[in-house]
Amino acid sequence: MDYMKPTDQTIEKMKRASEPKLVHGGDIYSARKALKGLQAGSVQIDSVQTDSLALAPRLLDFSANINPLGLPAGVKKVLTEAIEGFDIYPDPLCRELIANLAVYEDVPKEWLLCGNGAADLIFRMVYAIKPKKAMVLAPTFAEYEEALYAVSCEVIRYPLSADSDFQADEGLIDALDQELDLLFLCNPNNPTGQLMSKEFLCRVLERCKELGIFLVVDECFNELLEEPERYSVKDRIQGSRNLMILKAFTKTYAMAGLRLGYCLISNGALLEALREAGQPWSVSTPAQLAGIQAMKEQDYLAESKRIIRQEQEYLISALKESGIKVISANANYIFLLDPIPRRRSLHEQLLDYGILIRNCDNYHGLGPGYYRICIRVHEDNEIFVAVLQNLSKQ
Amino acid sequence: MDYMKPTDQTIEKMKRASEPKLVHGGDIYSARKALKGLQAGSVQIDSVQTDSLALAPRLLDFSANINPLGLPAGVKKVLTEAIEGFDIYPDPLCRELIANLAVYEDVPKEWLLCGNGAADLIFRMVYAIKPKKAMVLAPTFAEYEEALYAVSCEVIRYPLSADSDFQADEGLIDALDQELDLLFLCNPNNPTGQLMSKEFLCRVLERCKELGIFLVVDECFNELLEEPERYSVKDRIQGSRNLMILKAFTKTYAMAGLRLGYCLISNGALLEALREAGQPWSVSTPAQLAGIQAMKEQDYLAESKRIIRQEQEYLISALKESGIKVISANANYIFLLDPIPRRRSLHEQLLDYGILIRNCDNYHGLGPGYYRICIRVHEDNEIFVAVLQNLSKQ
Repeated sequence: MDYMKPTDQTIEKMKRASEPKLVHGGDIYSARKALKGLQAGSVQIDSVQTDSLALAPRLLDFSANINPLGLPAGVKKVLTEAIEGFDIYPDPLCRELIANLAVYEDVPKEWLLCGNGAADLIFRMVYAIKPKKAMVLAPTFAEYEEALYAVSCEVIRYPLSADSDFQADEGLIDALDQELDLLFLCNPNNPTGQLMSKEFLCRVLERCKELGIFLVVDECFNELLEEPERYSVKDRIQGSRNLMILKAFTKTYAMAGLRLGYCLISNGALLEALREAGQPWSVSTPAQLAGIQAMKEQDYLAESKRIIRQEQEYLISALKESGIKVISANANYIFLLDPIPRRRSLHEQLLDYGILIRNCDNYHGLGPGYYRICIRVHEDNEIFVAVLQNLSKQ
Repeated sequence: MDYMKPTDQTIEKMKRASEPKLVHGGDIYSARKALKGLQAGSVQIDSVQTDSLALAPRLLDFSANINPLGLPAGVKKVLTEAIEGFDIYPDPLCRELIANLAVYEDVPKEWLLCGNGAADLIFRMVYAIKPKKAMVLAPTFAEYEEALYAVSCEVIRYPLSADSDFQADEGLIDALDQELDLLFLCNPNNPTGQLMSKEFLCRVLERCKELGIFLVVDECFNELLEEPERYSVKDRIQGSRNLMILKAFTKTYAMAGLRLGYCLISNGALLEALREAGQPWSVSTPAQLAGIQAMKEQDYLAESKRIIRQEQEYLISALKESGIKVISANANYIFLLDPIPRRRSLHEQLLDYGILIRNCDNYHGLGPGYYRICIRVHEDNEIFVAVLQNLSKQ
């Protein structure tokens, strides 16, 4: 099939459009700006069965870890019907959402606080406890560190080793000390996709209790795992005043544009401090309504997990065939290292074809050659694989 | 007509449902929870021409200062068509929104930062400059003080005098001193509706410059004034590194549930500090799209202002006839004092009829008897007036 390829001019535009402030995946806006000016060049891609992409060049975003099925149909319906009511203030206490969430998570509603995405709660947490010294993994999600800098906190980065494929080890527990106020962990970790076992996390938690360290476990990618409960420390919330678990609808239910995250904390005083660390109306009406409906979409969730597993295998095998090392693929994204010497880097070459992947060279502890791709629907993954094979031939 | 009145049991439920945390207007959720259990009692209200309310009891919210016309039709259309795309991350830099806003406000786009409602920007401001001592008016919007407490800032309240109908005076300028880091003003002030002249504000600004005080002027209610430009200090942004103006789509375009505010600052370093004081994705996709469309709805805005002026006169004359003192009605809300001795307070009696008004007795500097009502469409205002007249007869 003919796959429309941007011209050299467009590629230059794309590069200019990406701004230094944007350190995260999912920034289709810079790339899209450039694609608008696209003039058709084309290349032959042999193995792509679908010809849907022959119609027009479009941007395929493999850089953001969102559920590939898009917003659940039920959520779209609820939002469509609710638009008329977006004029009035949202419920600052998210009462209906939290009542439903308490059932969904099987926890008391007093343990729950919702936010404008999980990122809102990361900042609230940091503003609420004002840590002087905190530890994060390297590499990990950059917003922990960004939030810590907002309170001028000293940040210690615990280096994960490339030799062990960035798996957290016993050294992390040994590295904890009484000077630390806060530890951020992410499970599965972002961008590595590596999992920490529940047993390991429980030992970290106990050590944190002994040392007076507050532990945040970000489980935003937990629910799309094959066996979420095997890795969650949710059952440790009760009785752990120093533990907060972060979760989000963003990834699980493809609601990144709507912004809805939440946290679990049994420490009531801390939860109130988080609430007071920001404005009362942080969760919009569409986000609250979408969240309430999303929890009812359990067929969607099961189907999402099935597709993610299936497509994961498809992508892994294609990546390996192209000589790319798959470091981890536990989560709904794949962490990889490109060991092939290239004149132009893998992400630049893919962008020539309108495919955006997450270049991980700006993570602390990583460097050139590390990438993260999310798992999309088969049609998109086929294009990715075809383009990848095309590159290998060059 | 027959107007359905809640039973005594429902009224008790309503009281229990209102929680102490909720200090603002617009909390229809507490009241609505109670109304759901409503059993019909009814009272005869003579002068109401419409019988739409006879069908079912509903809550009429006069407590939140939102444009009475609801979301512009164009905004509803844009949102309906955009739902499919709410799965992906919003543009963290709000580029299209800000490009449009720069034209709308006739300022460079480098002066603009958008937030998850103006309240998001109030907290960012306070987190960014970390004031030790700040001044607010009393009474005024409570979130300034809430945000200041989040950074343990000492708050000085400048008392506005009931004798001058809470109009700010020269004494405010005299009260400023070098120890102050920050001054929050709100123009028109909330809840009083009183306006400060541009000339007065410019003198405050100059004094703040001399003393090294940062001045935030909240102009969230400015655009629904009869002559907005007469009261805005927008033309002082250029050259004033110590000035921030707060604005919002929330009230002007009835988008409170969507959350969209913005600020104007010519001090680039401060604007960047505000950006970094919170998460990158604070403005949702629906908020960004709604904002872009709202700015095109200038017929809607003109019509809104016409209706507000017209209904304002209607409500003022009814309030006066009922013996209630109208303190100020410059803005899209009316500030009033009920001097009538009653066995039960005005807001409680109105709530018996499902009418929610803003009881202002929890504002610093106010006490029992002060209320704020917003201006709604004629049909709703008629019911308000009819119920008010009914109360007067009791």
